[in-house]
Amino acid sequence: MSFRIEKDTMGEVKVPADKLWGAQTERSRNNFKIGASASMPLEIIYGFAYLKKAAAYTNCELGVLPIEKRDLIAAVCDEILAGKHDDQFPLVIWQTGSGTQSNMNANEVIANRAQQLAGKIIGEGEKAIQPNDDVNKSQSSNDTFPTGMHIAIYKKVVEVTIPGVKQLRDTLKKKSEAFKNVVKIGRTHLMDATPLTLGQEISGYVAQLDHGLKALENTLPHLSELALGGTAVGTGLNTPKGYSKRVAEYIAEFTGLPFITAPNKFEALAAHDALVETHGALKQLAVSLNKIANDVRMMASGPRSGIGEIIIPANEPGSSIMPGKVNPTQCEALTMVCAQVIGNDVAISVGGLQGHYELNVFKPVMAANAIQSAQLIGDACASFNEHCAVGIEPNHEVIKKLLNNSLMLVTALNTKIGYYKAAEIANTAHTNGTTLKEEAINLGYVTAEDYDAWVKPEDMVGGLK
Amino acid sequence: MSFRIEKDTMGEVKVPADKLWGAQTERSRNNFKIGASASMPLEIIYGFAYLKKAAAYTNCELGVLPIEKRDLIAAVCDEILAGKHDDQFPLVIWQTGSGTQSNMNANEVIANRAQQLAGKIIGEGEKAIQPNDDVNKSQSSNDTFPTGMHIAIYKKVVEVTIPGVKQLRDTLKKKSEAFKNVVKIGRTHLMDATPLTLGQEISGYVAQLDHGLKALENTLPHLSELALGGTAVGTGLNTPKGYSKRVAEYIAEFTGLPFITAPNKFEALAAHDALVETHGALKQLAVSLNKIANDVRMMASGPRSGIGEIIIPANEPGSSIMPGKVNPTQCEALTMVCAQVIGNDVAISVGGLQGHYELNVFKPVMAANAIQSAQLIGDACASFNEHCAVGIEPNHEVIKKLLNNSLMLVTALNTKIGYYKAAEIANTAHTNGTTLKEEAINLGYVTAEDYDAWVKPEDMVGGLK
Amino acid sequence: MSFRIEKDTMGEVKVPADKLWGAQTERSRNNFKIGASASMPLEIIYGFAYLKKAAAYTNCELGVLPIEKRDLIAAVCDEILAGKHDDQFPLVIWQTGSGTQSNMNANEVIANRAQQLAGKIIGEGEKAIQPNDDVNKSQSSNDTFPTGMHIAIYKKVVEVTIPGVKQLRDTLKKKSEAFKNVVKIGRTHLMDATPLTLGQEISGYVAQLDHGLKALENTLPHLSELALGGTAVGTGLNTPKGYSKRVAEYIAEFTGLPFITAPNKFEALAAHDALVETHGALKQLAVSLNKIANDVRMMASGPRSGIGEIIIPANEPGSSIMPGKVNPTQCEALTMVCAQVIGNDVAISVGGLQGHYELNVFKPVMAANAIQSAQLIGDACASFNEHCAVGIEPNHEVIKKLLNNSLMLVTALNTKIGYYKAAEIANTAHTNGTTLKEEAINLGYVTAEDYDAWVKPEDMVGGLK
Amino acid sequence: MSFRIEKDTMGEVKVPADKLWGAQTERSRNNFKIGASASMPLEIIYGFAYLKKAAAYTNCELGVLPIEKRDLIAAVCDEILAGKHDDQFPLVIWQTGSGTQSNMNANEVIANRAQQLAGKIIGEGEKAIQPNDDVNKSQSSNDTFPTGMHIAIYKKVVEVTIPGVKQLRDTLKKKSEAFKNVVKIGRTHLMDATPLTLGQEISGYVAQLDHGLKALENTLPHLSELALGGTAVGTGLNTPKGYSKRVAEYIAEFTGLPFITAPNKFEALAAHDALVETHGALKQLAVSLNKIANDVRMMASGPRSGIGEIIIPANEPGSSIMPGKVNPTQCEALTMVCAQVIGNDVAISVGGLQGHYELNVFKPVMAANAIQSAQLIGDACASFNEHCAVGIEPNHEVIKKLLNNSLMLVTALNTKIGYYKAAEIANTAHTNGTTLKEEAINLGYVTAEDYDAWVKPEDMVGGLK
Repeated sequence: MSFRIEKDTMGEVKVPADKLWGAQTERSRNNFKIGASASMPLEIIYGFAYLKKAAAYTNCELGVLPIEKRDLIAAVCDEILAGKHDDQFPLVIWQTGSGTQSNMNANEVIANRAQQLAGKIIGEGEKAIQPNDDVNKSQSSNDTFPTGMHIAIYKKVVEVTIPGVKQLRDTLKKKSEAFKNVVKIGRTHLMDATPLTLGQEISGYVAQLDHGLKALENTLPHLSELALGGTAVGTGLNTPKGYSKRVAEYIAEFTGLPFITAPNKFEALAAHDALVETHGALKQLAVSLNKIANDVRMMASGPRSGIGEIIIPANEPGSSIMPGKVNPTQCEALTMVCAQVIGNDVAISVGGLQGHYELNVFKPVMAANAIQSAQLIGDACASFNEHCAVGIEPNHEVIKKLLNNSLMLVTALNTKIGYYKAAEIANTAHTNGTTLKEEAINLGYVTAEDYDAWVKPEDMVGGLK
Repeated sequence: MSFRIEKDTMGEVKVPADKLWGAQTERSRNNFKIGASASMPLEIIYGFAYLKKAAAYTNCELGVLPIEKRDLIAAVCDEILAGKHDDQFPLVIWQTGSGTQSNMNANEVIANRAQQLAGKIIGEGEKAIQPNDDVNKSQSSNDTFPTGMHIAIYKKVVEVTIPGVKQLRDTLKKKSEAFKNVVKIGRTHLMDATPLTLGQEISGYVAQLDHGLKALENTLPHLSELALGGTAVGTGLNTPKGYSKRVAEYIAEFTGLPFITAPNKFEALAAHDALVETHGALKQLAVSLNKIANDVRMMASGPRSGIGEIIIPANEPGSSIMPGKVNPTQCEALTMVCAQVIGNDVAISVGGLQGHYELNVFKPVMAANAIQSAQLIGDACASFNEHCAVGIEPNHEVIKKLLNNSLMLVTALNTKIGYYKAAEIANTAHTNGTTLKEEAINLGYVTAEDYDAWVKPEDMVGGLK
Repeated sequence: MSFRIEKDTMGEVKVPADKLWGAQTERSRNNFKIGASASMPLEIIYGFAYLKKAAAYTNCELGVLPIEKRDLIAAVCDEILAGKHDDQFPLVIWQTGSGTQSNMNANEVIANRAQQLAGKIIGEGEKAIQPNDDVNKSQSSNDTFPTGMHIAIYKKVVEVTIPGVKQLRDTLKKKSEAFKNVVKIGRTHLMDATPLTLGQEISGYVAQLDHGLKALENTLPHLSELALGGTAVGTGLNTPKGYSKRVAEYIAEFTGLPFITAPNKFEALAAHDALVETHGALKQLAVSLNKIANDVRMMASGPRSGIGEIIIPANEPGSSIMPGKVNPTQCEALTMVCAQVIGNDVAISVGGLQGHYELNVFKPVMAANAIQSAQLIGDACASFNEHCAVGIEPNHEVIKKLLNNSLMLVTALNTKIGYYKAAEIANTAHTNGTTLKEEAINLGYVTAEDYDAWVKPEDMVGGLK
Repeated sequence: MSFRIEKDTMGEVKVPADKLWGAQTERSRNNFKIGASASMPLEIIYGFAYLKKAAAYTNCELGVLPIEKRDLIAAVCDEILAGKHDDQFPLVIWQTGSGTQSNMNANEVIANRAQQLAGKIIGEGEKAIQPNDDVNKSQSSNDTFPTGMHIAIYKKVVEVTIPGVKQLRDTLKKKSEAFKNVVKIGRTHLMDATPLTLGQEISGYVAQLDHGLKALENTLPHLSELALGGTAVGTGLNTPKGYSKRVAEYIAEFTGLPFITAPNKFEALAAHDALVETHGALKQLAVSLNKIANDVRMMASGPRSGIGEIIIPANEPGSSIMPGKVNPTQCEALTMVCAQVIGNDVAISVGGLQGHYELNVFKPVMAANAIQSAQLIGDACASFNEHCAVGIEPNHEVIKKLLNNSLMLVTALNTKIGYYKAAEIANTAHTNGTTLKEEAINLGYVTAEDYDAWVKPEDMVGGLK
C-alpha cells in the first residue's frame, strides 16, 4: 500500500495514496475505531455537498471567494451528490460530537479532488483550493454539521417517510371504503363487544396516520431552519455581511426544499431540539403503526385456530419446520421497526439534553438515529403496504359466524329494557351456553318479535349521529 | 365501621356506610391493591364531572333524560368540581385499562349524592338517579374515560405548563436584553472558544423555549378532539341523533376551552396518539430545560474554584456538613423533573403502542403520566423562574478575566493571515503560557498595532450578518 | 395560624407552630412548590430514621456523642419508624438533587422532637440536641441520602417485590403441573403451530419469573453497600475512626438486612449505578410480566368470538354500557404497571448518567422511581396472582376443537415423508378447506392407518429429549 | 445479469446465478426492502454456522444424518466462519420477526455450497444436501435463531465488551494509584466542596466499572442457555433423543464458550429476557461511562477559561475555524455511544415485552441492538482508553490554586468550633472576598496558629476510617 504525506496544524500524517481525504480524516480513522467503519450516514455527506456548494456561491457573490474557486468547489460537490465519491468518507458516527472530522473530511476531499480537476497533483505544488480557508470559508464545523443534519433529515422525511406513510394511508383509506358494509364483532379488552364494520375499524387506522402525518409536518418548519452562518459559536464571526440569509437561499435552491436561515443561531448550534421535535413525530407514527400492525396480525391469525377475520397475502413459506405455514411477516418487520424507532427516540433525547454552553456535541448520534428512523418508517410502510395492506380481504364466513355468536349484541336492548335486565340475559346465556334470544324470551323480558326487531347488528353500527 | 349493601350485575357488595360510592367502586378497591390508594388523578375525576354534566344536558336537550334528572346530575357535578367530594374517589391508576371502574365510581357517586340531594336515603327506596341508565346514559367507559383524559390534560397544559414555561421564557428574554453587551468567552466542547455576549447566549434559551411552546401548541388540536359519543366501540350505539357534536359543545362551554367532537371515534377509543403527541412536546421541553439548567449551574459554579461567570440567588443553606455552602438547587429540581418527563414519555409510548382492536387499555397509566409531566414542567419552570432565573446576574470581573485569557480570540486573525498561521500563534502561546499578542508579534505575523486593531472581542460578537 | 421563629445559617424563618420541622425544611417548602406536596417517599424518611439512630449509636460508641443524646435521638427515630410523625415530612421529590433538605428535615424533626422528649419547649432555651452538630454528626447529606435510598429500596425489594413475584411464580408452577397433560395447539407468529401442553406453555412463564428473580437477587449485593461514612465527598471527613464499618453494622442490625459499608465511598456518592442495576432487573421483570399477562388475556379472550382456551375469574362487571361483559382487568393493571416500570427505567438512566464530580444530584428522582417500581411490581403480581392466576382453568372443549383443526399437525409427517410433501398436504387442505388426513390420503403420500399412527398430538409434545 | 430457478413450497423464484442462496432468501430480499441491505449482523450468521455444524454432528451421532452429509455441512460452516461467504447473506434485520428467512438463508447457502463441494452443479441433479431436511434437520427457525443470537452476543460480550471495559478499568486503576497524593478540591452540585485526592476521585470510576463488569458477568449464565432442541414451539418435536443436550455441548466445544442447553425451551423461544438482562448491564455500563467521560471533560476544560485540573492528550485539531483548538473528542465519542446504548435498551424492552404465545417475533431487532451495544461499548472503551485515559495527567499548578481558594476548607473547623460558627466564617469570607483564615481570626473564633494546625487540606482526605 502506498501513502502520501498530508499535513494539518498538528503535523504530518500518512494517508493512503489513492484516497482523496487528508490529514484530519486520517487522524479520525485512526483515533476512532468504534463499530463498523464508514458509519457516518451518506445522507449527511450529501448534506455537506449541498452546503459547501451553497457557501462557495455565497462567498463568491459576497466578494470573498474568486469565481474559479467557487466553480471548482461546486464541481466536486456535484460529483459527490452524483455518488462518485461515496468511498472517500470513511469516518464513523462515534467521532467528535461536533462532527468536525466529517466536516474536515468534506473539506479535504473537496480540496484534493479540486486539485485534480485543476489539473494538478494532490500533495504537490500550491493548492488550488485550501480545505480550511477556501472550502470552509465563512463556516465552522459548528454550523455546517447541523446544517448538513437538517438537510439530510428534512430530505429523508419528505422523500421517504411521508411518501411511504401516505401510500399505506391511502391503501387503508380505500380498504375502509371497500369494507364499509362488512359488519363484524367489535372487541374491547380483547373481549367480544358490540359490532362495527370492518371499514369503520380500518378508518381508525387512517385517522391515526392522518394525525401522525400532520404531527410530522408540524415539525418541518423548525427542521427547515439552518445553522449556517453561525460559524463557531453562533455569532457569525468571519462571515461576510448578508451571508447567512443568502446561503440558506442557495441551499433551498439547490435542494428544492424550503430551507431558511435559523432566526437564532445560538439555539441552532447549542441545542438540537429540532431533531427531538421531528423524531417525536416519527415516534408517534411508530406507536400508531405498531397498533395497526398488531390488529392486522391478530385479525389474520389462524388459519384455523385463531381469529381469522381477515386474509392477508401469503408472501413466503413461514417455517423451516412446519410445512405450509404462512406468517404475518410484514407486520413483524413493521413492528420491529417501531421498536427501533421508539428506542432511537430515547437515544436522541439523551443526546439532546446534554448540550453544554455554545455547542451540543451529540450531533452525529442524534442525526444518525433520526435518519435511520425516517428511512425505516418510510420503507417499512411502503413494504407493508405493497406486500400486505393492499391484499387485505375480509373472510366473510368467519366474520359472520363470530358476529352472530356474540353475547354483546344484548347492548341493543339497553334502551328498551335497561342495562340490568340486559345484563341478566347475557349472563344467563353465557352460563347456559345458549343464545341471547332464547334467554331473552325465557326470562320474559322480550318477545321473539321484539328481539328480532331490536337486535340487528347492522343497525348497531350506524355511524355517528 | 358500618356498611350498607350495594348491588351490581354480579351481586351484592358491602360498602362503608359513610361513602357515596357503590358496588363497582368497592369491588375495584378490593381487587386492585396496587401502590398507594386513590392514585387516580383528581384532574381526571374533574374531567368526568364536566363530561357527566355535559352528557346530562345533551341527553335532556335531545329528549332522552328528564330535566329533573339533568339538574340533579349537574348539581352533583358542580359539587365535585368545587372539590367537595375529593375523598369519594378512592381508586388507583392500576385498575382496568379502560378506566371503567373510575367511570363507575363517578356514576355511583353522582347517583348516590343525587339521592341525597333529592331528599332520599342512599340505598333505600327507588333510586332518583340510576348510575348506568341515567348518569352514564349515551355513554360508555370507552368514550368517557378518554374524554376525561383529554379534558384533564388539555386544562393542565394550558393552565399550568404553558404559563409556567412562558414565565421563564419571558424572564430569560429580559435577561437576554439586559446582558446584550456583556461580552464573554464562548465555549464549545466545554473548551474555550470565540466570544459572544451573555445576552446572545441566553437568547438561545429563549429560542429553545419558543420552539418548545410552539411544538406544544401544535399538539393541542389533536388533544381537543373528544371521544364522547363513540360509546362502546366508536359507533355511537345507544346515543341519540346529534349527541356527539352537542356534548362536545357543552364541554367546551363548561370548561371554556375549544373542545370539539373527534371526527373519528374509532381512533379516539382505540389509540391515544393524542397523548403521545402532546407528551412528545413535553419531552422536547424537558430536553430543552435540561440543557438550560445545566448551562446555568455550570456558569454559576464556584464560588471560587469553578466557572463563576454568573451569580444566582442563594436560597437556602446547601450542605448539612459544609458550612456556608450554597448550591444551584433550582437547577437540580428542574433537571430531575426533566429526567422524570423523559421517562414518562417511554411509559406513554409503551402504553400507546399496545392498543388492541377497538380499545386501548392503557388509558389510566398514559393519562396519569401525561398529567404528571404537564404539572411538573409548569411548576418547575415557575419555581426555577422565581427562585433562580429572575436573580441571574453577570459576575463582570470573572467574565472579563476569562474572556481576555482566551486563546481563541486568535480566530479573528483567520481572515487576515489565514487559519494556519493563526493556529501557529495559538499553539505557541499555549505551549509557552504566553499571550496571543506576544506570540503574534514574535512570530512576525502581525504588528502590535494590527493586533490591537484586529483582535477586539467586542467586535467578534457583532450579531449575525 | 400561629408561627414560631426558627433559624439557620441564612437567618430566621417562620415555621407553623404545631410542626416539628425547622428553618431549612420550611425554606424548602417555600422554594419548591412543584407537584403535589410531601411527595418524598416515606420509605426514604424511614431509611433516614434507621440511619440516624445507627449514627447516634456509632457516634456514642466511638466517643463523640454522649449517651443521653444517643438515646434521645434513637427514641425519636423509633417514633418515626412507628409512623407517628409521617406528617412532619412535607417536602417534595423535586428539591435539591442531593436530598439535603430531606436530610435536614429529618435532623430538624429529630432535634425538635428530642427537645420535647427532654421536657423542653421547642424554640426555647438551650437545645437538647442540635440538628447539625448532633443528629447529623459524622454525616453529610451526601452520604445519608444515598444510604436512606438504599435502605428504602432494599427493603421494598425484599419485602414487597420478591414476595409478590414469588407468589405468582408459585401459582404458575402449580398450574403448570396441573395442566401438564392438557394438549393444545401452539402458536407462533400468532399463527397455528405444532401442539404443546398448557402446562408446558405455563412452564415458560415460570422460567421467565425464575430468571427474573435471579436477576433481581444478583443486584442486591451492590444495593446492600451503604454510603454512610463518606460524608461530604467520600473521604469520610469529620468521622471518627472505625465509623463507617460500625454504622453499617448497626443499620444491618436495626433493619435485619445484610447491609455493609460501601468499599468505595466515592462511587457511592457520585454515582447511583446500584439503583440503575436493581431497576434494570425490575424492568426485566416488567418485560416478562407483560408477555405473560398478554398471553393470558389472549388465551382467555372471548367468551365466544375470541380464542377462549382458558377461563379466568370474573371479578367485576366489565362495562358500563355492555351488559354482562367481563374483562381481563388484572392483566390490564399488570401491563400498565409494566409500562410504568419501563418508563421509570429511563428516568433512572437519565438521572444516573448525569452525575458530576463528587456527587450525583438526581438522588430523589432516582430513588422515588425505584421505590415506585419495586412497590408496583410486587403489588401487581400479588393482585394478579390472587384475582387471576389462581383461578386459571382450561376450557377443554375449546382447546380440543382448536387443536384438532390445526393444519400444523402435519409437521409430524416431516420425518416420515419429508418437509416438501408434508407442505403439499397442508397447503392442499388449506386451499380446499379439508382435513390433513383426507388430503394426505388423496395425494397418496400416507395411508389412513399410517396417518392415524403418525399424527397424534399427544405424541408431539413429548417433553424435551 | 443471469439467473437460475430455485424452488420452495410456494413455487419457483429467479435467483442471481452467481449467488449461493435459494428461493426463500430471494423472496425475503424482494419482500423486505427496508433500510440498507444486508443489515442482519454477520455475527448472527456466524452463530448459525456454529449451530448448523453442531446440529450436523449431533444428528450424525444420533443416527439421523449420514456422516457424508455431516462433513459437507461442517465444511461449509467452516468456510462461513472463515469469512468466505459474507456476501451470501443479503437479508435485513427488518424481515420476519422469527428470523426464519435468515435461517433459510443459512440453510440454502450451506446446501448450495455443499452441492459445489460435492462436485455437482447448483440447481442440477439430485441435491447432495437438502436445506430443510438435512441442514435444518432437528431444527426450526424458532430455536436456531435465538441460539444464533445467544452465540453472537455472548461472544461479543466476552471478546469485545469485557476486554474493552477492562482495559479502561485497569488504566484508571493505575491512574488512581499514581495520583493518590494529588490533593484537589472536591465538587458537589458543581460547587466547591471539601478536598479529596485525584486518585480517590478516579477510584470511584474504577468502582463503577468493577460493579458494571460484575453486573455484566452476572447475566452470562442466562445468555449461555441455548434454545436449540426446542424446534417449533419448545417441545423438541422431530428431534432425536438426547439431541438438545448434545448439540449444546458441540456448540460449547466449537466456540470454546460455556454454552448449555436451556432448561426450559418454552421460555427460550417465547421470550428473550436473556437479552433484556444482558443489555440491562450494558446500559448500566453506559450510564457509568457517561458519568466518567463527563467528569474527564469538565476537569480537562479550558485550556485557560475552564476548570483545567487535568490534561488529556491532544489527538487532532479540534476546529475548522478556531485555530489551535483541541477538544475532548474521546469523551464525546464515548458519551455518544452511551446515548445509543441507552436508546437501544428501550428498543430491546419494547421488543421483549411483545412476545406472543410460543414465540417472540422481535428476535432480529433485539439481537441487532444487543450486538451493536456490546460492540460499541467495548470499542469505545478501548478507544477512550488508548487515546485519552492513558494520557491523563494532573495540572498541579491549577489544582493547587483551586484547592487553596476554596471556602469549603472551613469544614475542618466543624468539629472544633461547631457548624454554625464555621458557616459564619465562610459566609463572611465569601461576602468580603477575603480568606477563611483572615475572617476566622477577625471573628475571634480561631487563632492563627490553630487555623494553620486545623485546616490542612492534606489531612482532610485521609481515607475512610
